[in-house]
Parts: sequence; structure tokens; C-alpha cells
Amino acid sequence: MINPMNLALIGAGTIGRMHAANITFGVEGARLYGVADVFADAARTCAERYNIPRWTADYHELLADPKVDAVLVASATSTHADIVEAAAKAGKAIFAEKPIAKSLADADRALGAVTKAGVPFQIGFQRRFDPNFARVKQAIVKGEIGRPHIAHLVSRDPGPRTAGPVGVGGGVWFDMMIHDADMALWLIDDAAVEVYTQAAVLIAPGLEKYGEYDVAVVMVKFANGAIATIDNHTDAAYGYDQRAEVIGSAGAISIDNTYPHNAIVSDASGLHRAKPMPYFLERYQAVYRDEVQHFVNDVRDGKPIAVGVKEARDSLLLVLAAKKSHEERRAVRIAEVTAG
Amino acid sequence: MINPMNLALIGAGTIGRMHAANITFGVEGARLYGVADVFADAARTCAERYNIPRWTADYHELLADPKVDAVLVASATSTHADIVEAAAKAGKAIFAEKPIAKSLADADRALGAVTKAGVPFQIGFQRRFDPNFARVKQAIVKGEIGRPHIAHLVSRDPGPRTAGPVGVGGGVWFDMMIHDADMALWLIDDAAVEVYTQAAVLIAPGLEKYGEYDVAVVMVKFANGAIATIDNHTDAAYGYDQRAEVIGSAGAISIDNTYPHNAIVSDASGLHRAKPMPYFLERYQAVYRDEVQHFVNDVRDGKPIAVGVKEARDSLLLVLAAKKSHEERRAVRIAEVTAG
Amino acid sequence: MINPMNLALIGAGTIGRMHAANITFGVEGARLYGVADVFADAARTCAERYNIPRWTADYHELLADPKVDAVLVASATSTHADIVEAAAKAGKAIFAEKPIAKSLADADRALGAVTKAGVPFQIGFQRRFDPNFARVKQAIVKGEIGRPHIAHLVSRDPGPRTAGPVGVGGGVWFDMMIHDADMALWLIDDAAVEVYTQAAVLIAPGLEKYGEYDVAVVMVKFANGAIATIDNHTDAAYGYDQRAEVIGSAGAISIDNTYPHNAIVSDASGLHRAKPMPYFLERYQAVYRDEVQHFVNDVRDGKPIAVGVKEARDSLLLVLAAKKSHEERRAVRIAEVTAG
Amino acid sequence: MINPMNLALIGAGTIGRMHAANITFGVEGARLYGVADVFADAARTCAERYNIPRWTADYHELLADPKVDAVLVASATSTHADIVEAAAKAGKAIFAEKPIAKSLADADRALGAVTKAGVPFQIGFQRRFDPNFARVKQAIVKGEIGRPHIAHLVSRDPGPRTAGPVGVGGGVWFDMMIHDADMALWLIDDAAVEVYTQAAVLIAPGLEKYGEYDVAVVMVKFANGAIATIDNHTDAAYGYDQRAEVIGSAGAISIDNTYPHNAIVSDASGLHRAKPMPYFLERYQAVYRDEVQHFVNDVRDGKPIAVGVKEARDSLLLVLAAKKSHEERRAVRIAEVTAG
Repeated sequence: MINPMNLALIGAGTIGRMHAANITFGVEGARLYGVADVFADAARTCAERYNIPRWTADYHELLADPKVDAVLVASATSTHADIVEAAAKAGKAIFAEKPIAKSLADADRALGAVTKAGVPFQIGFQRRFDPNFARVKQAIVKGEIGRPHIAHLVSRDPGPRTAGPVGVGGGVWFDMMIHDADMALWLIDDAAVEVYTQAAVLIAPGLEKYGEYDVAVVMVKFANGAIATIDNHTDAAYGYDQRAEVIGSAGAISIDNTYPHNAIVSDASGLHRAKPMPYFLERYQAVYRDEVQHFVNDVRDGKPIAVGVKEARDSLLLVLAAKKSHEERRAVRIAEVTAG
Repeated sequence: MINPMNLALIGAGTIGRMHAANITFGVEGARLYGVADVFADAARTCAERYNIPRWTADYHELLADPKVDAVLVASATSTHADIVEAAAKAGKAIFAEKPIAKSLADADRALGAVTKAGVPFQIGFQRRFDPNFARVKQAIVKGEIGRPHIAHLVSRDPGPRTAGPVGVGGGVWFDMMIHDADMALWLIDDAAVEVYTQAAVLIAPGLEKYGEYDVAVVMVKFANGAIATIDNHTDAAYGYDQRAEVIGSAGAISIDNTYPHNAIVSDASGLHRAKPMPYFLERYQAVYRDEVQHFVNDVRDGKPIAVGVKEARDSLLLVLAAKKSHEERRAVRIAEVTAG
Repeated sequence: MINPMNLALIGAGTIGRMHAANITFGVEGARLYGVADVFADAARTCAERYNIPRWTADYHELLADPKVDAVLVASATSTHADIVEAAAKAGKAIFAEKPIAKSLADADRALGAVTKAGVPFQIGFQRRFDPNFARVKQAIVKGEIGRPHIAHLVSRDPGPRTAGPVGVGGGVWFDMMIHDADMALWLIDDAAVEVYTQAAVLIAPGLEKYGEYDVAVVMVKFANGAIATIDNHTDAAYGYDQRAEVIGSAGAISIDNTYPHNAIVSDASGLHRAKPMPYFLERYQAVYRDEVQHFVNDVRDGKPIAVGVKEARDSLLLVLAAKKSHEERRAVRIAEVTAG
Repeated sequence: MINPMNLALIGAGTIGRMHAANITFGVEGARLYGVADVFADAARTCAERYNIPRWTADYHELLADPKVDAVLVASATSTHADIVEAAAKAGKAIFAEKPIAKSLADADRALGAVTKAGVPFQIGFQRRFDPNFARVKQAIVKGEIGRPHIAHLVSRDPGPRTAGPVGVGGGVWFDMMIHDADMALWLIDDAAVEVYTQAAVLIAPGLEKYGEYDVAVVMVKFANGAIATIDNHTDAAYGYDQRAEVIGSAGAISIDNTYPHNAIVSDASGLHRAKPMPYFLERYQAVYRDEVQHFVNDVRDGKPIAVGVKEARDSLLLVLAAKKSHEERRAVRIAEVTAG
């Protein structure tokens, strides 16, 4: 048997610990060798929980360790670019949570380092590995619905909104919409050309002071004439809602949410069923494991990474254009953002 | 028993004959007294089929007949404004198919005559009487989903596209989108402020020469911050598709198409069910009768018409702004269209 | 145009008035010429409501009237056999509500008269004309699910139970199960051989004194080896529930209830939709009209009636065997009932 | 941290290896210490695949090993009783796959030994841990549907039927129906009183020579008056189908199958979705892990086992009565089987 790949986890927060559990119990061919977190206690606790040999508050130590084959970047959004850049320079294979950065300059610095180093790089767009979203892609690739004409993507976070200002996270633009941007680009499989956005603060007054919005709707025009709409809401009373629909020249495909069970209760007041899976950790539990398994397999086998540098950058461009459209209250061409 | 209301049908084409059948067999308190069509044979045939006492190629004769209480305008789109204007001047109650006109000037001329004459006027937005769309409105009015934030309206005609150039009809803008515009305005129940459109010819090359498109997607911003998207496709391979979804501060509501039956066949290739009702005549069969019944009742009882002059005009403004947005490739404020 | 068929309605209760409305507004080629009801006021009121030329408390007067082409028997269950027998002897075409009788002797007397007279006879099993049930039959006939192996039929009346003792009606055996018996025979399309029943009083204590039960479940074995189960409940808290499922050698087909609308409301407590159509008048509204239209057409065209003497008798045999099985607490062969 | 429980797996076939994978990757607080299989190669291969310290062709060696805390019996059905008896005498906690035996004498011998030894015992009715079936039970326990009146249980194996004679397995009676028997008893939560069965060979002629049938339908009457039907089919063309429905005094609950994804493809031929999860290994993947986790936790915490001796015996009684009903072509009381 080949030695398992040594992974270093950088960031031991909610997402990081979820990856740690998956790697420990569900990913074959890899093991957690080290964990880093700026909060030393978090790193130590995680190491103990998952029997990780090495822990540190300084991720550079792990990058300097020749035993580390690959890093899994699950730290705060604002640190992604720096860590990816450093990991690339250290020659490590990289799995990074999305988004790569919140500015194009940061993204290009990090992704440039990756390209220069020639290291494997995967960005954490887990929906590509989700059986439902993957089925949509498959239907398109196999021609079941013909050439895509219109895509409609819905991502709504469960309310009530848990936090005030976005802080170190990505908010509606970089945490939520970045996924839909990637889905739209993946499904339409063409270059985005022009973007128009309407965003509003309808729930939490004052949010706009932080450049944040609780409702955002985006329309994207692609070079081949296809059109996508993205519907983002941060506060859905009925819970976590992520769906997609695409109509093409030969048919349409749509996917629903997933549910903790499918029971229907019929009583004097009507028919009732449960809300969707509560949030991303529950809904994409198996998918988060699968994306890392793909990463481990592809790195080991020397295969090209399915969702990498180009996907990380293109999705960011789309979100930056959408944000600019809202700020300048006009349609924005993607070319304007790249020119900037 | 009160004497039945004498209706004059103007236009004995597909829609006109459908109304004739409904009035004959299903509307209480009204009867068809006359029918007019520029094609005299069509008027005569219709009169014979439904035992209508009077028929003519010249609708003015019916407007001049004091026995006619009300007219039902089901002629070609391009003739609606003239007929409505003349009927108003003749003092008749008016039920007119949508759209009232394809230009604001024509619409204002006709609707101005209606207002001046003070005659009852109903525009044929039948979806308002459809049990599914009406349930969405009811949920909003009753507060079941809170304050509306985002509405998504889908209208797709069954393919393959039956005709080339639009000719006397309304095409994607005035035949299809006008309904969704009315639904958006009805459901959000606020003034539309700004509109952005992407339209494309993806199916029938050359169509754009006629100002017509087979795909059009519109985003509408309302004064209260709500956002609506409209998804129009003229050529859905799987048939007639009209759905709606609204998310509000307390929940969401969505409606599906209707189907000829609900059987699910499970076999070695999967689970299968029938396509939606084939087209508007089948899907809205009972609804077309109900809207005329409402008209007859409201006229008789002297009640205000639920969907009248304002609704006919506001929906047209929205479509005109959407069309202008596409033509000028920018977001357009509603105020720009009214100013014109 | 051929003269419309003159129908005489016998029985002006709920079902009778429903047929009167359908014939007046929806059935082509027929008109109501007379109406009879033992309550003269009911006959007179019905005649006035639907402009029926002749009314009487004595149906024999209508049978003696040569202008009557056909009778529609919608009186109390206990009178069906007598009226059908008399109508047959009078040479009228007959449409009779189900069941033909509650005893085999009565049924054979009435159906024997029909056969002897050679008059057209249709029994009111409206589900055969329902788009959902008809789709199940079609799938079987077309071979979509192969040879039928197991059928499951559900008929549950909406609660709370409206009445105490059954009285002149048919109760769970003759009002409810008779329909499922006909469906099982129609779908399996073979002779029933043996029947086993469990029935219980779980809701309305004391009901069994009247030979009535609020829950009854029946298993039927057919000559070809197929098996059917019938699930009857008189008091479903969530309303009227009539479904069917058949599995065959090549697949399965199932049908759901129908609903006043298909809206799904999603809120903090879950996903909700409306209960099924409230009761038979609403659910089968169009179907009741269609079955009479078929009768009128078949009589006029001299075509054999699709659901007639054999169907009326076979369904009764099945119900009698099911009742006997419950009473004797053992499986009962159909041959035992016919021998009796 | 407490030492993990040492499990010995007896039987390294399909089910055994599935449990091995679950215990290795998903069950906390336990580890596989030994594996036995009459085919020594199977035991050795399994030991290598999952790093199990000890393997043997003779399970008695594992029972004699004091390091073994508990055994997991996943061997051929015909060996369950002997192994359970021996394990009980050896004082091991026992998790046994169903059925405990195919005769009451064998079952009572094994279960008697368990009771006498006082060891923890769990029978592998995994559906009790399935989120869908568990939701049905929860609805009943919480009173959401009132007192249960009628239950309908469907279990159909995917066709084409993979094997001829049943051999060492349990066939329709002991492999399939045993689960539905347990579900009926669990959901109705009362004593079964009388059983009636119709079984037939409709697919694989000659099967009855082996006492085996490809279609079996059972009706069960309970002491409290409730009625259950069980619908078993060994050869469903559309795949693995396991559903349940219960109607009670206040409502009903139903559960559907689970699916690999929920995408709906709409095209010119209709609406299509995927077949259910292919078979038990896929459908109950997580459930098989959860039932063992419950066993490990309950044994460790000294809690009573939720599904044990009584459940193993009662379900067998029901199946034996159902089989006897078929063989003797009459309804059979449970008391007749226990008396035997």
C-alpha cells in the first residue's frame, strides 16, 4: 500500500473541523499530519480530537515541514490569498476554501504563485461534487436538454440572520454569490459578458453601511447568448434553500433541496413536510468529503484538478462585476473588472 | 329572474370562440347577442355554432345596437385600442383581451375614452382568476409569507415555435411578458421603478429583424425595494410552462404547472409523468370562464372592476420599459417611458 | 341538427341536482325533459332551477311518457333496482347511479329486465371516466407496466363522519367499496376468485349494530393470480382520499388525489400544501358530466355501453363476498355468493 | 478516553463486509478485533482490508477469546440461531442480522439462551433507525395522526430476480416480509391477532417447488382493531421500493423511497426522474452504521436495547403465521403458531 498523503489543515474553525472529521473518518489515501490556527487552543484541541501529530499557531511551520504533502486552507476569507501564495511557494499541493480573495489583485497574486509553482490547486466549490448539481451538469453535457438558454440559481441562507457586519467573512457577495457564480459559469460553460445587479437591505436596516445586503439578484449574459439569473437571500424563514434550473433547446432540468426525511403528514389543516436540511454542514456533509477525496486522488494520480485556478478567478470576476453593478447602478461588462 | 346581459363578441378567432363557448355553456347571467369579425364567414359560423342572434363583419353595428349591454373584445392585438375607444364612446361595458395596445399613446387614447365615459372596463389578465396564481396573492395578502422580497415569474410557450414574424399578434413582449408584468405588479403590489432586460434569438435565426426574440429575461426593481425576475421563452421543448415563486420576510410560496393527470409510471428507465397542460386554452379553460363571470357579476352589481384601466396601463409601461432596456442595452426607469 | 335526447331525471337530491346542472350546462345532444322525486317540492324546485318542462312526484308518469328517451336514476340506493326494472320494461335507455342494488336477488331482477328489454344501460362508475384512473387503465392496456400483479386501491371519505346509521344509503360496503371493487375488476381485468375482509368500528362506537363499519380492508385474489387490496376509511381527518397503485411485470403506476391548487407555502414550521379536493362533487365535477356525455353519445350512436350490466353485477358480487367474509370471519369464494 | 469495544464479526459476506466498513470508518467507540467466516479466505481478505487483528474460519475461537466484547452475526440465515446461542453462552453482547431463525423452535432456543445469559441482544431491523421510517413512528408517538387505524407497508426487491431457489437465504418470507412484519408491529404497537395471506408465482415459474413466491400480500389484524397490509414483490422492474403509510384518527403519514438525486428532466416525452436507490446497501448505507452505533452505545451505557428479543420473536411469529395462512389457504391466528 502506498503511504497516505500527509495533509496540513490551516484553520480549525467550523469548516476546518468539518474537513478534519471527514479526512479522519472518510477520506482514503490521506491523513491529517498537522493543523494550524492563529488561536493556538483551537489548533491543539483539533489535534487532540483527531489524533493529528503536529499542531501550531503558525502555519508557516507546517509549510516548512517537508513531511507535509498538501495543505487544506480553511481559515478566514481574508487570509486565503496570503496562505495560498505561501503554500505555492513552499511547493505544496493546495486545497483552498472559497473565495480565493475578495479583490482581483489579491486573487491574481495568489493564483499567479500557484501557476508559477506548478502545484496542484483546487478551490472549494463543493456543489460541483453534489449529486444534484452534478446531475444538472451531466444532463447538459450529455445533451439531454440541448444547448442551455436560461439558468436560474437560487441560494438563500436560513434566517434569522445570525450576524451583523460581515467582518472577516465574505457576506452575500463572497460567501454566497461566489458559489452561484461558479455554478452559472460551470453550467453555461461559456464566458460571462455582462452583469446587472439589484441588491437591497430589506431585513436588517443599516447593513448597507458595511457594503452588505440581505437580498441580491443578478442577471448574467454570456457570450453565447445564454442568460443566467442568481437569486440570493440571507434570511429565508423556511431555512437553507439552494436550487437550480436550466432550460435548453431540447428540454429543462431542475433540482430541489434535500430534506432530513420525505414524510408527508396529512391532517385537518393540510399536507405538511419538513423544511430542507438546516444548513451547509448538514446538506453537503458527504459532498465535502467527496471533494477532498477527489483532490487527494487527483494529486496522487497526477491528474489535472477539475476546479482550479481558472474557476477560482472567473467566479470572483463575476461577483466583482455584480457588486460593481450594484454600486454604480448600471450594467457592468466583465471586461471592465479585468481592466481595473 | 333578471334578464341576462347581452354580450357582443368582437373577434371570432381562437380566443373569441373560446369565450363564446364559455359564455354559452358556463357563464350565468349573460348571453351572446351578437358577434362581429372582419371575416364575415367567421362571424356567421360562430353565430350558427352558438345560436347567436346577430352577426356582422362590422363591429360598429353592434356598438350602435342599444340591445348590446357589453362587448367582449377578442380581436387582433393591433385593433384593441380602436375598438375599446369606440365601445367606450358607445357607452358599453367592456371586457378586452390583453394587451390594451402596443404603444402608450394608443393605450392612453383608449383608456382615456373609457375613463371619460365612465364605463366598466376589464382587461383579460386571466391569471388573476387562476386558483394557483390567486393562491400566491392570497398568501401575500394574508401575511403568510410576510412582506414580499423577491418574485420569480416563468412563462414559456410550448415549442416548436409555431410562427415566424409576429404579425398582428404581440409576440414575446406583448403576448407573453405582458402577463408576467401584470403578475409582478399584482403580487408585489407596488410601483415598478427600474427595469433591465436581456433578450436573445437562440432558436429561430433572423427573428430579431422583426423586433422579436425567443428568449427574454427581465429584472424589475420596485419602489419598496422588492425585486422581480421574469423568465420568458417562446419554445419550451417540454410544453407550456407558467410558474411563480415569491419569497417574503416570513416564508415563500411557489406554484407549479397543471397537468392532464398526475399518474407516475415507474419502469426500468426511471419515473415518468406527463407534460403540463398543452397550452393556454387547456390550462386556463375554467379560468377564462371565471374571469368573464366576474366581469358579468361586477357590471351587473355595479361593483368596481378588479383588473381594469390602471392594470392595463401599468403592465404595458413595464413591458415598454423592458423592451426599451433591451434596445438601448441599459437599465431603464419606468419614468422614462411615461415621460415619452 | 338532430333533436336532442330527452332525459328524465329520477331523484332530485344532491347527486340528481348535480347531474341536472351538468346536463343543462355541459352535456351536448341531450336536455332534461322531466324530473321526478318522491318529494314533490324537490322535483318542482329542480324543474324551475333548470327549466325542465315536466316534473312529478311519481316517476312512473315519466316512464309512461313517450317523449322520454332515457332516464337517469339518481334516487336513494334502495330504490335503484325497482326503478331500473320499470324503466327497462318501459323501453327507456337507462343511466343508473351505483350500486344497482344491495342484494344479488334485487340486482338480478333489475339487470335481467334490462337484458330482456335490450335497452342501453350504464352504471354510474364515474372513476372510469376520471383522467387519473383512466390513465392507470391505459398504462395497463398499452403494456406500459406489463401484466398486473398487485393493485392497491384507497378510498377514504372525509371526516368527521357526517351521519349515524346508513339508512337509505349504501355505507362503507355499497357506497364506498363498490367503486373500489369496480376499479379492481377493471384494472386487473379478470375474474375475482376469493375475498378476505377485516372491518372494524374504530371511530363511532355502536355503528356495527347497523352492519356498518368505519374501517374496512379487503384482499381479492383473481383467477390469473393477481392480488388486489382495498383500503376504505369513512372518516379521514385530512379529507377525501382516492388513490390507486398497480405494479406489473414491467413497472408500476400510481395516481394521487387532486387538489384545489398546487401552491406550496414554506415557512418556519415546514412546507405546507392544501388538502385534496373536499369531496366527490368537487373532485369529480367534470367527470360526472363526461360519463353522462358518454352515455348520451353511445345511446345515440347505438354503440355498446362501456360500463353496464356485467360491471354492475360483478362489483356487487365482490362487495357481497367481502361483507360475507367479514361476517363469517373467513375467506369467501365469489362462487359462494353467486351460488346463494 | 475509554477503550473501544472489541467487536468480532461473524460472516464476511456482502452484509458482513458492509458492517466492517461502517465500523472501521464510521462507528465511534468500537473497533473490529476479529472476523470469522467458514470460508477462511473470506475471513482473511476482510481482515486485511480493514486491519482486523484476528481472523479465523471457526467463530468459536472468537467466542472463546476474552478480548472479544461483542459479536456481530452476519452469517447465512440458517446459522443465526446456533451462533446467537453459542455467543450468549459465551457471555458476549450480540448484534444479529435478521431473522433470528426460520422456525420458532430455533428462535426460542437462541433467544432463550440470550435471556438466560442476560447478555445485550440487538436484532438487525435497520429500518427502525432510518430517518423516514423513524419519522412515521415519531408521528404516531407524538399523536400527530392520532390512534393508528390502517398501515400499509410496501417492500419490493429490484428485478430481475437474481437467484433461483432461496438456498441458505430467507426468501420472500424471512428476508423480505420479516422487515415489514417488524414495521407493522412497531408502528401499530399492539399484538397481532390474525393473519391472511395471498402469495403467488407470477414471474419465475417453478419457484413454488422451493416454498418460495415472487408476490405475497398479507393482511394483519391487531388486538386493538387496527389493520395492516404488507405488499411484497421480489422483482420490481423499477427497482428497490420500500414505503409505508399509516392513517390514524387524526391524520395520515406516508413516506417515499429515497433517490440518488432529485433532478427532474422535462423534455418532449414528459417529465422524468431517477429510479430509487438501487438496493439495500445504497439505500440504508448510513442507517446500517447508525444501528450498530446505537448497539455500541447502549451496550457501553448499560441501556436496554431498543429492538431485541421480543422484536426478533414477534416478527418471526407474524411471518410464520403468514406463511401458514398461505399454505393452508385460510386466515391463521397468531395463537395457532405459538401453540405449535
